[in-house]
Amino acid sequence: MERPFLLHEPQNPFVYPVETDVLCVRLLAESGALRRATVWFKNVYDHPGPYRPIAMTRIAVGLRFDLFEACLQVPERHFRYYFSFETDEGKWDFTAEGRVPSGGVPDAFLVPMISSEEIVTVPDWARGALIYQVLVDRFMDGDPTNNPPVVRPWEALPDRHTYYGGDFAGLIVKLSYLEGLGVKVLYLSPVFRSPSYHKYDVADYETVEAIYGGTEGLKALVTAAHVKGIRVILDGVFNHASSDHPFFQDLLKNQEQSRYRNWFEPHGFPVSMEKANYENFANQVPKMPKWNTSNPEVQGYLCGVAARWTKELGIDGWRLDVADEVAHTFWRRFRREIKRVCPDTLLIGESWSFSGPWLRGDEWDTVTNYRFRKWVLAFFQGEITAETFWKRFADNLMRYPTPTWNLLINLVGSHDTERWLRALSGDRNEHLLSLVLMLFLPGMPLIYYGDEVTMDGGTDPDNRRAMDWAATKDQETQILGQIGLLRRDSPALREGILVSEPSAPDVLVFQRIFGNEAWLIVINRGKEPFSHSGNGWKPRLGSLVTGNEIFVAGGSFALFQKA
Amino acid sequence: MERPFLLHEPQNPFVYPVETDVLCVRLLAESGALRRATVWFKNVYDHPGPYRPIAMTRIAVGLRFDLFEACLQVPERHFRYYFSFETDEGKWDFTAEGRVPSGGVPDAFLVPMISSEEIVTVPDWARGALIYQVLVDRFMDGDPTNNPPVVRPWEALPDRHTYYGGDFAGLIVKLSYLEGLGVKVLYLSPVFRSPSYHKYDVADYETVEAIYGGTEGLKALVTAAHVKGIRVILDGVFNHASSDHPFFQDLLKNQEQSRYRNWFEPHGFPVSMEKANYENFANQVPKMPKWNTSNPEVQGYLCGVAARWTKELGIDGWRLDVADEVAHTFWRRFRREIKRVCPDTLLIGESWSFSGPWLRGDEWDTVTNYRFRKWVLAFFQGEITAETFWKRFADNLMRYPTPTWNLLINLVGSHDTERWLRALSGDRNEHLLSLVLMLFLPGMPLIYYGDEVTMDGGTDPDNRRAMDWAATKDQETQILGQIGLLRRDSPALREGILVSEPSAPDVLVFQRIFGNEAWLIVINRGKEPFSHSGNGWKPRLGSLVTGNEIFVAGGSFALFQKA
Repeated sequence: MERPFLLHEPQNPFVYPVETDVLCVRLLAESGALRRATVWFKNVYDHPGPYRPIAMTRIAVGLRFDLFEACLQVPERHFRYYFSFETDEGKWDFTAEGRVPSGGVPDAFLVPMISSEEIVTVPDWARGALIYQVLVDRFMDGDPTNNPPVVRPWEALPDRHTYYGGDFAGLIVKLSYLEGLGVKVLYLSPVFRSPSYHKYDVADYETVEAIYGGTEGLKALVTAAHVKGIRVILDGVFNHASSDHPFFQDLLKNQEQSRYRNWFEPHGFPVSMEKANYENFANQVPKMPKWNTSNPEVQGYLCGVAARWTKELGIDGWRLDVADEVAHTFWRRFRREIKRVCPDTLLIGESWSFSGPWLRGDEWDTVTNYRFRKWVLAFFQGEITAETFWKRFADNLMRYPTPTWNLLINLVGSHDTERWLRALSGDRNEHLLSLVLMLFLPGMPLIYYGDEVTMDGGTDPDNRRAMDWAATKDQETQILGQIGLLRRDSPALREGILVSEPSAPDVLVFQRIFGNEAWLIVINRGKEPFSHSGNGWKPRLGSLVTGNEIFVAGGSFALFQKA
Repeated sequence: MERPFLLHEPQNPFVYPVETDVLCVRLLAESGALRRATVWFKNVYDHPGPYRPIAMTRIAVGLRFDLFEACLQVPERHFRYYFSFETDEGKWDFTAEGRVPSGGVPDAFLVPMISSEEIVTVPDWARGALIYQVLVDRFMDGDPTNNPPVVRPWEALPDRHTYYGGDFAGLIVKLSYLEGLGVKVLYLSPVFRSPSYHKYDVADYETVEAIYGGTEGLKALVTAAHVKGIRVILDGVFNHASSDHPFFQDLLKNQEQSRYRNWFEPHGFPVSMEKANYENFANQVPKMPKWNTSNPEVQGYLCGVAARWTKELGIDGWRLDVADEVAHTFWRRFRREIKRVCPDTLLIGESWSFSGPWLRGDEWDTVTNYRFRKWVLAFFQGEITAETFWKRFADNLMRYPTPTWNLLINLVGSHDTERWLRALSGDRNEHLLSLVLMLFLPGMPLIYYGDEVTMDGGTDPDNRRAMDWAATKDQETQILGQIGLLRRDSPALREGILVSEPSAPDVLVFQRIFGNEAWLIVINRGKEPFSHSGNGWKPRLGSLVTGNEIFVAGGSFALFQKA
């Protein structure tokens, strides 16, 4: 095969618009092979005109590829371009016919037009913001008068059904605590009326749960959070409903005559919950019938409800449940209707795998980056080296348009995973180091309530214990809070570029840089101390400095700021 | 870099659905490296269940990659899969983390759901059908009474403005001629009222040109064509209008107060044709203002017109002009509305380059495969070998879902290129051989009127001379007609698989196979005769057989059928 190996197709994520007349263009090149790369471009219809060059920047280094990128501006919006590149062996062009000798008439790539719907834009405020996820029922009971008749004692281990009494009033009480952690975004579990404590099966999208405090309680929370500079995001469950939902009940009652016949996906008639002969969540949960999200009526209903709440509640975004099992046409309409009401609303899709098809500018803004959890675990378990960690991190970024990089939701825990402490076999020190790592990396770090106090728990329901408020005085919580606040107040830590350094296999060494601001972070999972030149670095956290040398002990981390 | 090099991402064209529960999955592997490849798959939610294997088929061999494909059925529609493969060196798995040792717990790829809108379906009738493109004004004047006041003599060379008088009545007269060429699809230049002879600038989408014979004339043509088994396709010009269009005139008159203000894309006010301060075709033709195809009102108007005509005229498809400069949202709606009226309507996008983003199942059915022209030219000019021709042909296919392969519009000439004869520097023999090649290859071959009679001409307007009816008695036309009829009546020649054989650099040798039917085609562009075993092959056209050996003279072709 022709070497070095290069890859480009004129389609997302190799090309994506960021303005009506600006197209970002990428070239993937076999790791380490290119000294430099250039894009040559012009207006498609400017036949006599010369191609103009722009140097490409190497913006990521993965396991197999280096990623080069440049953004081109053509006022006429018709893009014609090709690449030139240089290796140790010489110079070539890379065109629609592959690698060719340098300087010929190029068989150029074409991007004939930018559709306004596909311009990749993200809410500015979201870049690098720290998210805190709560299960409303399990976080804080601020108003016992709205509790359901039976609640479990706060310290008791959870089952799959019982309530604990948490509510919006409790969240308001604890906003100062979240503020102290540097939290910028509060993400609430579902709040609409539902027969379950978790409310991932909505029976009434138009009513906020009374046991949480109802619409007024939620509005009060949003207002109070905003006063503290904390955004609020709701969990939108549009893949399926509760079987209690009146439209599904209508289908059960009226069968083929139901006006909601095409709102769900029956396999045949009569539809029956016993036979579960209709699409439902995971094809395993008959109590959660799946909406037919390709049906424009369903789209109109659910997108309409979401748009109304977005406006009425003044919320800042939606985390979209099981979002990768909902029709693309649904999300395109959802985005259009929500962004029309409030352009700054953040749309996060829940997905556990590669999510390129939803991040092309016209559906979600970002995605739950669950694969991050895997690599962090592999690093702390000694399965992969620091170098491999960085390359996997970069390989993931390469799959998405660059504007989304600072929005990818990095997480190690959620209501759908066993507690992170359990995943780490109870190692509190690794638990702390891994959360520190997450807080210093690009993206939107997400803390699942209680992880900051090192809560333990197995898989569902044990990962949903009531919040351990006693543990918030622990040293780990204090350290994480310090870092959260540093991040909150530092453009470099929030959205600076990441520059990783070669190091020992057990040690992650990286900088975050934004303008003149720079930070150096060292995370040592190993047993041996790690040393690094301290030249120009001012110790900030956990650091031991001797003369010009920085020492970071095994099993610890250190933070430095550019002097 | 890890070898062999493999490529897969869980997105189109690496994956695409063909049924609600069938997903086709592809793996690209460095040329020649894999002995075999297998996909292992199951329902995403079936955690305990075993993965099931399906052997992949190598369906194309390109310059850099072999393409392997298999289609998976999962009734629950949630797909989890990974690959295993075997090389001369051993066996491995290929998962979301890349190449890993065989037999571990795979980090699988996920395609969480199939959206019904993205299922790749094509009109069955179109597979491999021969298209004949006419400029209505230049083909045949069947009814002089409807001619415009001034027409040019039929034999005179064209300028950019004058009419010749061709019409639907003329086309009806010549349907038998087309039938004799094996034509299955008649593609007409634009027919709606317009100030130009070519009518690529529509002033009134709701009126069929009177000088062509009006709506009744067109209906008569469609009916007569259908009687002969010939489908009719119109040229849909939805990227731009004529500046005579009343909505644009309204904008010029009422400026910011015009209700059509957002139907076009003014750069500022006052909008003026002199300043050309609005988007227009190629940013060079102020008389062709560009529609704002992202505007839902514009979409409703133009898609509505097209749907009404589709039904009223009973036509079989649309060739969509400048289709790659129209918003994706426009085409998604266009497809939905047209296919609702008539699911079998063929949608062909005009594009001169890679068209992957429009062929994901929810926009066009196929595309004008203009790059084909380039490779045929390069082969007949001796710039590339037969082997490179096959690999470029395959590289192009690999970029599109397999169901579209038999629909790609292979062409060597159109109203937008110089005449094919001119491109070949007047070599009539190469002209014949290249058309023969096109007629034997997979795809929908397109003959631009007159190419079958070896018409000459430079670029526009000289490539639009009136049809040379005298030349239809030439031997070339007879040969092409014979092949067209063979193709029309042979499933193997229309939609059989293509198997190319290693040969001399100047000689294309390939089979088309469908069930028990097989054909062998040899096209020798060189000077030396080419010999091939004749075992099991029955001579059909242009062949010279001695004993068991087939001889194909330099500069000739031959056709054999499986005995």
